[in-house]
Amino acid sequence: MTVGIGLVGCGTVGCGLLELLGAKKDCLKGRYGVDFRLVFATDAIKGTVFSKDGLNLGELAAKLARDGNFHGADAERTASNNINIKDLVGESGISILCEATPTNYKTGEPGMTIMKSALASGANVVTSSKGALGLDMAGLKKLARDNGVQIRFESSVMSGTPLINLIRGPLAGCSVTRVEGILNGTTNFILTRMEEGLEYAEALAEAQKLGYAEADPTGDVEGFDAAVKVSILAGEVFRTRLDIEEVRREGIMSVKPEDIRRAAARGAKIKLIAGAALDGGKVTGYVLPREVESSDPLASVSGVTNAVNIVTDNLGTISIIGPGAGKIQTAQGLISDMLNIASGIMWT
Amino acid sequence: MTVGIGLVGCGTVGCGLLELLGAKKDCLKGRYGVDFRLVFATDAIKGTVFSKDGLNLGELAAKLARDGNFHGADAERTASNNINIKDLVGESGISILCEATPTNYKTGEPGMTIMKSALASGANVVTSSKGALGLDMAGLKKLARDNGVQIRFESSVMSGTPLINLIRGPLAGCSVTRVEGILNGTTNFILTRMEEGLEYAEALAEAQKLGYAEADPTGDVEGFDAAVKVSILAGEVFRTRLDIEEVRREGIMSVKPEDIRRAAARGAKIKLIAGAALDGGKVTGYVLPREVESSDPLASVSGVTNAVNIVTDNLGTISIIGPGAGKIQTAQGLISDMLNIASGIMWT
Repeated sequence: MTVGIGLVGCGTVGCGLLELLGAKKDCLKGRYGVDFRLVFATDAIKGTVFSKDGLNLGELAAKLARDGNFHGADAERTASNNINIKDLVGESGISILCEATPTNYKTGEPGMTIMKSALASGANVVTSSKGALGLDMAGLKKLARDNGVQIRFESSVMSGTPLINLIRGPLAGCSVTRVEGILNGTTNFILTRMEEGLEYAEALAEAQKLGYAEADPTGDVEGFDAAVKVSILAGEVFRTRLDIEEVRREGIMSVKPEDIRRAAARGAKIKLIAGAALDGGKVTGYVLPREVESSDPLASVSGVTNAVNIVTDNLGTISIIGPGAGKIQTAQGLISDMLNIASGIMWT
Repeated sequence: MTVGIGLVGCGTVGCGLLELLGAKKDCLKGRYGVDFRLVFATDAIKGTVFSKDGLNLGELAAKLARDGNFHGADAERTASNNINIKDLVGESGISILCEATPTNYKTGEPGMTIMKSALASGANVVTSSKGALGLDMAGLKKLARDNGVQIRFESSVMSGTPLINLIRGPLAGCSVTRVEGILNGTTNFILTRMEEGLEYAEALAEAQKLGYAEADPTGDVEGFDAAVKVSILAGEVFRTRLDIEEVRREGIMSVKPEDIRRAAARGAKIKLIAGAALDGGKVTGYVLPREVESSDPLASVSGVTNAVNIVTDNLGTISIIGPGAGKIQTAQGLISDMLNIASGIMWT
């Protein structure tokens, strides 16, 4: 089965998707019987390429790596052509749009407009960006349903480590009452280095040097990033709107080395725990530093790794641990979503 | 959507399925749009009940709990009627047969014959029993394919904790090179109690008293149970036949209290690690006691809990932790498989 796809946003994640799809083309065809044909790729800065017969993934990835843009590529479309999403989706007849633009938490743009256009045009959407989902997951899902398509977003939380698809598919039949864990790799790295004796400022500087933390680390260390993910999980798992401002939030700046040492003396660890819970019909969200016992799988999670405990009725607690970020890891989440759409999973 | 199902085997797992399906009927209808209608339940000892309009799950579960059999139930069929599987499946027109008979590792019976009959009659099969899968997974899968149906077996390894469906669905796109972990709760319980100071014999006696270990504990402590699961994982993940005899196997009887103490002094644990790995095109299987570092999530897993590390190309290592046995936990795995069949997942 050939499945036409389009890509919007050719930054780190988009490039990762081109690379991974190129590298795994034969493997995906062999194992899942799905041949993804990339019909277009477009980026606000790098330009647009379009070919009804399918673009060469390896060539595109190489061109981006070499020149940083699509200018001069055989399949290039310039701004004089129509390159808005609605027209690209309509002309290409793709089944799935991959949305991988940088996210804006305040407006959800440009992802919001792009995804709404694609869904309204009858394309399924897979996305790695959090902004639009945090702001209006229900609206996006409704638009998808109304157009007989899906929106999937495994990569928006824990990159390709399966959490959302795990709950949707393999845990189908379970009712979840709580989802909580380590959803921000940067702060877990900093806390891990503090366990190893560094001061907060030293650990943060190291995280910045390694590219884990940004120059302005607020989004991570004050818990905003984790709070957006909690909002997404509340929407997905509990089908409830939980605004980011409603998530009780405390970052890791209040964690003192002596707190970490005191916990260590008891065999425990301090972790920034982000979660959403359903209690008495009400969903609450939180991002709080908390002491975690050594018997809890979350305690074994160090560095930038992410981990979540899923509390269910039928199985008790299920834990899933894996990477929380990365170019290929995020692309994997998009591919998982694309394959699951191709397989025609019923519920969304 | 109404989905007709039949149940073969009304022991602990079968009863669990009746209970759980009864308790979650409305929830499954609401969340997944699937209404499972149990048309028949049959057990070699307890008898057979059949109703085209659907049996009352709560009443059946209560009758089994009270009388231990179906004798005298309104919907009872006696041996004078035809109650072989082929006829039951044919007459009932069910979509899914749930196979939950006790397993025989040497012959795969009675599951093997039951499942082959059902598949050949055009019914999907979900099963919790390991024997037939360990002996001829490829044959069963081929028979399913040839008849346009599926055979699914999430519950055969780690009960309802998602491992097989996790790799099939949410991890789709990843190539797995190794799956290994704690697949036998009984031996992990014994090792945990030995960490806490008990001798092997004391820990075993306690496991027997709690119902975790059988009077003849060979299947668990010598690693047979884990080896069958390794064989199933090799068949599912690597699509390779790996006979139980080919699995390198050493039980926990060689583990000495001083080994455990020595490991503990380094912050490590001794675990019975069962796994299958693909290396240079060859699949090997093993069940061996091994020292596990505290940084490995497997080290945090105590008691009867199970856990697996899945080593992949795209994501590195993904860990999943959850219950490895239990009436409701196993029934949950069957329900997950049933929902996934109902949703029409493409690849099997």
